[in-house]
Amino acid sequence: MYTSDERSRLAPADARAVFRAGTVEPTSGWSDGYAQANLISVPEDWAYDVLLFAQRNRQPCPVLDVTGAGSASTVLAPGADLRTDLPRYRVWQDGALVDEPTDVLAHWREDLVTFLIGCSFTFEFALTKAGVPLRHVEQGRNVSMYVTDRQCRPARRLRGPMVVSMRPIPADLVETATRVSALMPDVHGAPVHVGSPAGLGIQDLGKPDFGDAVKPHKGDVPVFWACGVTPQAALMASKPPFAVTHAPGHMFVTDIPDATYRVG
Amino acid sequence: MYTSDERSRLAPADARAVFRAGTVEPTSGWSDGYAQANLISVPEDWAYDVLLFAQRNRQPCPVLDVTGAGSASTVLAPGADLRTDLPRYRVWQDGALVDEPTDVLAHWREDLVTFLIGCSFTFEFALTKAGVPLRHVEQGRNVSMYVTDRQCRPARRLRGPMVVSMRPIPADLVETATRVSALMPDVHGAPVHVGSPAGLGIQDLGKPDFGDAVKPHKGDVPVFWACGVTPQAALMASKPPFAVTHAPGHMFVTDIPDATYRVG
Repeated sequence: MYTSDERSRLAPADARAVFRAGTVEPTSGWSDGYAQANLISVPEDWAYDVLLFAQRNRQPCPVLDVTGAGSASTVLAPGADLRTDLPRYRVWQDGALVDEPTDVLAHWREDLVTFLIGCSFTFEFALTKAGVPLRHVEQGRNVSMYVTDRQCRPARRLRGPMVVSMRPIPADLVETATRVSALMPDVHGAPVHVGSPAGLGIQDLGKPDFGDAVKPHKGDVPVFWACGVTPQAALMASKPPFAVTHAPGHMFVTDIPDATYRVG
Repeated sequence: MYTSDERSRLAPADARAVFRAGTVEPTSGWSDGYAQANLISVPEDWAYDVLLFAQRNRQPCPVLDVTGAGSASTVLAPGADLRTDLPRYRVWQDGALVDEPTDVLAHWREDLVTFLIGCSFTFEFALTKAGVPLRHVEQGRNVSMYVTDRQCRPARRLRGPMVVSMRPIPADLVETATRVSALMPDVHGAPVHVGSPAGLGIQDLGKPDFGDAVKPHKGDVPVFWACGVTPQAALMASKPPFAVTHAPGHMFVTDIPDATYRVG
C-alpha cells in the first residue's frame, strides 16, 4: 500500500493511524527519525517485578516510559492510544500465548501497567545514515530474533533468557555499526555479540525464534543486539497470570526524535 | 590522616574499611577510577514508588543497583556492607531528618530495599584527566548542592524538586566538561544548566542547601549537574514513614571502574 519511501516519511501520528485502521506490518523503516518502542502491560501487582527486571537487565530492557495503572496514554506520544495503535499485539495467560489481535480493547483491564521499552529499530535510521545496509529492510522482512543461552539477572518472580536481534553487516562496517549504536544505550546500545551464533547458544540463524529469516550477502557478519522481546521470554519462563505485549517487530511508533536517545 | 594523593590511590575496599572504622569525610577524590553511588533505603511497600520516580527522572536518579528486601549487599561491591561502609548516613521519619549516624546498624529493618544511584563524583576523575580543575577538591570542601525550582515528574506517592551539584569551571573548559560528562549518562551525564543560578531558581551560590560553599576563581562559570540528592528532597516533600540515605557528598565507593559507565 505504501512504498518504503512513503513509510519512512510518514509522521508518527499518521503511522499510528494506519496501524489503528488495521494494517499489520513490521514497523522497521517506518517514520524515519522517530524512536520506536516495545510494549508490555502487566497487572499492577506485577509492575515492580517488571520494572526491577528491567533495571537489572538494562541492555535488553531500557525503559522509556511507564504508565499509571489502567492508562492507555504515554508521554512518548500524547495523542496515542496504547490499546489500538500498534500493528499487532500478543495476549498472554499463565505464560502461554492465547491471542494475537490487532487491538487489545477487548482484553484491556483497569489494573494494567504498561512499560514502553527502547527498540533497536530506533538506531537503524542512524545506521542507514552511516552507510550500513539493513538486509531485513531491503528484503521486506521482519528482523531476525533469537532466544540465547544467556540468562537475565532475575527480579522477584521474573526470570528468563536474553533475546537478541541479528543484522547481517558487511565485515568492514561492523565497527561503524558498533560505534553508532553504542551512543544510543536507551535503545539497546552496542552489540552484545559479533560473529559465531554458537557464542550465544544459537543453533541455526536460518530458524529465528521470532521474526523472519534474513538472507546475508557474501562477506556479511552476523551482529547481535539485545532485544526488547526479552520480557516476552520472561513471561514464558515466569508465567504471570496475564500480560499484553506487542508482537515482535510490530512496535509502537513514538513522537520522540531518535536523536533524543543519542548520547554525546 | 591521608593526603589527597593517598586517598585517590586507595582501593575501593580499603576506602570502605576506612569509613567503616569511623572516618567521616566527603568522598570526592577517593579511589580514583571507581564509581561512587548515592544511597536510599525505603520500606518494601515504597520500593515501586522510588524505582518509578527514578525511571521518570533518570538524569537526577540513574539507578545502578537495587537490593532485595533486607539485604545489605550489592553487586556493585560484593564484599561491602551497605549499613556500615559509607562515611555518614541520614535517617528520616515522616520526611524529617532524625539522625546522622556513621552506621545504620541500629536503624536497620528487614523490609528495607536499597537503591544505589549514580554520582557525579564518578566523572570527576575523567574531568581531571581532561584538564578541568575541581575547585571543591582543591579547597578540601564538599561539592555545593542546591534545591532548584524544577519539579521532578511525580511517581505515585513521590514528588519533589530536582537537586543539582555545582562546579565552578573556567569558561574555556565548559565545553570540555560538558562533552566528557555527557558520555556518562548513568552518573548524571551532561549539565542541566550553565551560567546564571537564577535560571534554576537558586538565590545565592554562597549558600548551598547541601555541602559547602566553594570559592570560584576569576573567569569561572557555574556549571550545574543533576544530583543524586534529589531523592532526599523527595523524602522531605513526600514524607514516607521511614528511610535511610547517605549524607550528601558522603557516598558509597563501589568496585565498579568508572569507565564501565562511559558510553561509546
